[in-house]
Amino acid sequence: MSSSALFEKHKALLDKALTAIRTRDYWSPYPESPSKRVYGEEAPADGLKAFDAMKGGAFDLPGHPGTGMRDGKERSPYGIDLGVFYPAATVDDVVSAAREALPSWRDAGVDVRTGLCMEILARINARSFEFAHTVMHTTGQSFVMAFQAGGPHAQDRALEAIAYAYSEMAAVPETVRWEKPQGKNPPLVIDKFFKVVPRGVAVVVGVATFPTWNGYPGIFASLVTGNPVIVKPHPAAILPLALTVRIARETLSEAGFDPNLVTLLVDDPDAPVAKDLCTRTEVKIVDFTGGSAFGNWLEENCRQAQVYTEKSGVNAIAIDDFADVKGMGRNLAYTFSLYSGQMCTTPQNVFIPKNGIKAGDDRLSFDDVAELLASSIEKFLGNPERAFGVLGAVQSDATVQRLENAGALGEVALESKALQHPEFPDAVVRTPTLVKIGGDRQDIYNQECFGPVAFLVATEDTADSLEKVRQSIGDNGAITAGVYSDSQDVIDQARSVCEDVGVALSVNLTGGLFVNQSAAFSDYHATGANAAANAALCDSAFVANRFRVVETRIPVTEPAAAE
Amino acid sequence: MSSSALFEKHKALLDKALTAIRTRDYWSPYPESPSKRVYGEEAPADGLKAFDAMKGGAFDLPGHPGTGMRDGKERSPYGIDLGVFYPAATVDDVVSAAREALPSWRDAGVDVRTGLCMEILARINARSFEFAHTVMHTTGQSFVMAFQAGGPHAQDRALEAIAYAYSEMAAVPETVRWEKPQGKNPPLVIDKFFKVVPRGVAVVVGVATFPTWNGYPGIFASLVTGNPVIVKPHPAAILPLALTVRIARETLSEAGFDPNLVTLLVDDPDAPVAKDLCTRTEVKIVDFTGGSAFGNWLEENCRQAQVYTEKSGVNAIAIDDFADVKGMGRNLAYTFSLYSGQMCTTPQNVFIPKNGIKAGDDRLSFDDVAELLASSIEKFLGNPERAFGVLGAVQSDATVQRLENAGALGEVALESKALQHPEFPDAVVRTPTLVKIGGDRQDIYNQECFGPVAFLVATEDTADSLEKVRQSIGDNGAITAGVYSDSQDVIDQARSVCEDVGVALSVNLTGGLFVNQSAAFSDYHATGANAAANAALCDSAFVANRFRVVETRIPVTEPAAAE
Repeated sequence: MSSSALFEKHKALLDKALTAIRTRDYWSPYPESPSKRVYGEEAPADGLKAFDAMKGGAFDLPGHPGTGMRDGKERSPYGIDLGVFYPAATVDDVVSAAREALPSWRDAGVDVRTGLCMEILARINARSFEFAHTVMHTTGQSFVMAFQAGGPHAQDRALEAIAYAYSEMAAVPETVRWEKPQGKNPPLVIDKFFKVVPRGVAVVVGVATFPTWNGYPGIFASLVTGNPVIVKPHPAAILPLALTVRIARETLSEAGFDPNLVTLLVDDPDAPVAKDLCTRTEVKIVDFTGGSAFGNWLEENCRQAQVYTEKSGVNAIAIDDFADVKGMGRNLAYTFSLYSGQMCTTPQNVFIPKNGIKAGDDRLSFDDVAELLASSIEKFLGNPERAFGVLGAVQSDATVQRLENAGALGEVALESKALQHPEFPDAVVRTPTLVKIGGDRQDIYNQECFGPVAFLVATEDTADSLEKVRQSIGDNGAITAGVYSDSQDVIDQARSVCEDVGVALSVNLTGGLFVNQSAAFSDYHATGANAAANAALCDSAFVANRFRVVETRIPVTEPAAAE
Repeated sequence: MSSSALFEKHKALLDKALTAIRTRDYWSPYPESPSKRVYGEEAPADGLKAFDAMKGGAFDLPGHPGTGMRDGKERSPYGIDLGVFYPAATVDDVVSAAREALPSWRDAGVDVRTGLCMEILARINARSFEFAHTVMHTTGQSFVMAFQAGGPHAQDRALEAIAYAYSEMAAVPETVRWEKPQGKNPPLVIDKFFKVVPRGVAVVVGVATFPTWNGYPGIFASLVTGNPVIVKPHPAAILPLALTVRIARETLSEAGFDPNLVTLLVDDPDAPVAKDLCTRTEVKIVDFTGGSAFGNWLEENCRQAQVYTEKSGVNAIAIDDFADVKGMGRNLAYTFSLYSGQMCTTPQNVFIPKNGIKAGDDRLSFDDVAELLASSIEKFLGNPERAFGVLGAVQSDATVQRLENAGALGEVALESKALQHPEFPDAVVRTPTLVKIGGDRQDIYNQECFGPVAFLVATEDTADSLEKVRQSIGDNGAITAGVYSDSQDVIDQARSVCEDVGVALSVNLTGGLFVNQSAAFSDYHATGANAAANAALCDSAFVANRFRVVETRIPVTEPAAAE
């Protein structure tokens, strides 16, 4: 299929995506159900077989720059060594290859690039089961979550980024005949040509927890706007992005483009290459998801590039008088348990008035609220099948360490437990802990404590809770905030605080929507308006700076200026 | 008139602007002719009277932060001391006032802000004659140029920025009812509210040569997206921006908004405040036009802000075999003379093959081409009325100094002359100089020599000329490039080079379009793709990062998740 035919092939889906980013109504092009009915009878078995075949072998990328292979050293949080070897390449190798690949990709034009990026996505989607295993065994997500968040939901975010970028590029006319009246003289007539050109070489620095979901927006936004992309995965989660790179390269090659438009740069924690890579003068775009320390370093030091970061934040919930505390407890039990709190959207600080709250006709003391949350989590995780399906495994030793240290920070309202996984004996599975602390412990609650740890912070009253939300998020940033209140006035105050500190707010969630969920084509993930992230997924600001317009003016009729 | 009525009042014009930014066909909403028929019988006299009244007096801004007045010390390049005193304020004063003004402006919403910004523009337009005098006597532009570039053309650029910003903000729905199917269960129904919020305090650092034309895009793009704006004019060109600030404040006050949404911060070269101001944590957006040294400093040091710069570049023209050399000579004579070469778009380096060119049936040696350009300029400026109307006056002593030193850099093909202005005896008027240099003098042609100086660079051949364009612009940046050639092949090569180095190209201009002219709503001024500027006027990248979206989610029907 020719590369322009690919645009036609995917045009109908693109049009739907273009509508969705403007209405932001519910829309998900890639089915989230890991079902044979949707993905084909053989898809689950094929996916597992493909994953098993990758383990303990060489992950070839034909034509990739560099020489030899290197051990990825990935170990699954479920206790399995993946043993995959990847192409070894230097920063020079991938940067040179990317530069060489740029001109023909730039000259291919907006439609061809868009069609090809959508074709890559379609092929990724078809292999969602295979991706699910790679995501599960690098991040520690449960299989279903790895399928959904690592597969279709990540693909949704990719298409969203493509749609935003296409929309901005397509808004630039390719040509116009410009006619300026000259009084009694004939008009000045100029043909103008406008060409979308990329910024240069793009880099995506991956994260260990959501390598595809957080990586795809940058990869596809940069690629569709004409920039070759170097993918530098987190050393603990290489395989999902390596597979992405492979599929992208195959698709590009088949269409006659240089596969080195998308390359893979594997490193390990003992010899990290991201600083060297991201400060190269050729690199003009960097997308990063990960901790604040390195994100801030990139923002400060990559002055030659446009840097998009999603870093850590300190998410908050404020609990005011609220009748449906059972619903709140159920909802928050899931929220805290999901992927063992290892989401950048999981709440960390729960601000509760020290004198407690009214729950309809009842009064709950601070300790009653703590007890309610603790028992809700215990009940929710009491069903082992559900527990393993929701918790997944803990991705890193550092998170286990933080969890083990958290108990010393205050009074433990809920102990974390280590669970024995029925299928993977070496899996690291932990339930969340809740720790009560005083409202004066800014030293604790103003820092990110990533993982299954939540602090229940005793405040003077709800006004103080909201003030602490303002201070904490204003100073440290956050990706999500929540409020529970029966008072419209309190809800309005919470909205006002959240607008001031630039954080998305969820109000009174008691059912099937969770504060840590963010749906592509509708929810802006992060805002870019506080310290947790300097960009949102996805808005026009995320894409508009990835390309420039170069104009050529050629006169058609050019009478002399009136003298 | 209520502030929402202002949106209705200007809606028809806004709609035309929204169309124009997509077609980029010729469109200019503000008439460029300084004509009584257009602006009213009394407009020219009223404008002069208003300007005269401002001279030697206190420029009041009621309610402006700070205390007392300070001498602006502006001296017209036409030899007149303006003697205007401006409100004295500290960085603290204006930053605090801006922060206080922010919330109600944010909460006013997109339409109200857009209507008000357009009303400010309408009032500025009505006073274009007054602006013309202020621009003329700060920048040294001739009266007609000051009227056009400082008045309607600057207003065009402002409306263009408003239209881009409105387009991006209006693309964010204010609310959506999001319904996600839940299989056999009732759908999850969530009301989502999306609010456009500003980044924070914005600063516009003005330039001495085009204070309004270069200042307005940033001022209006930041203001319409909700950011209070602190205007820090160049010490030599305060009055045009002070008048802009006054009109903005009056309009905002009348509509019930805090006038401190737009403030003026005057400094002088001995005690500059821009570094202190632009690095304040509250400042989230900086727009700068001026020299590379300070522009680069801002980019490197204002880590807390989004920084938009238009700095200096080294613009180039390549002359290949070309039949209509007379047309070329006439065109370039105007180009080099216009505002004495003090435009950021004026070509500096003219690359010419050392063995000359074919001009139809004739052969012109390198020296013949130099002579042709020199005599074209002499002839063009031989008409004194035209000369003074085009040249204007030299804005700064530094430019005179560069001009006087330029002769020593090579062989002078055209001497600069000092002309005696018929109306302003102390005006500093200089004609352009042309200096021949060898192709090995990168030390000369790779540096900006701002002012009425052009270097005629002898190259091996046209291929070498284009290679030198690539190297020079690739390394140093440029805002414009031109080529003269009868060969489609050479033109294609020039386009390819210009796409590589990200510079706008004008081809074979011989009539009434000049390489240094850039029309709002059609020409992208600068590209942001090379070292001369990190942003273009105007595209979506110029506006999209000036605001963020904060979301609130409130469940309507929220059945429990399937368990």
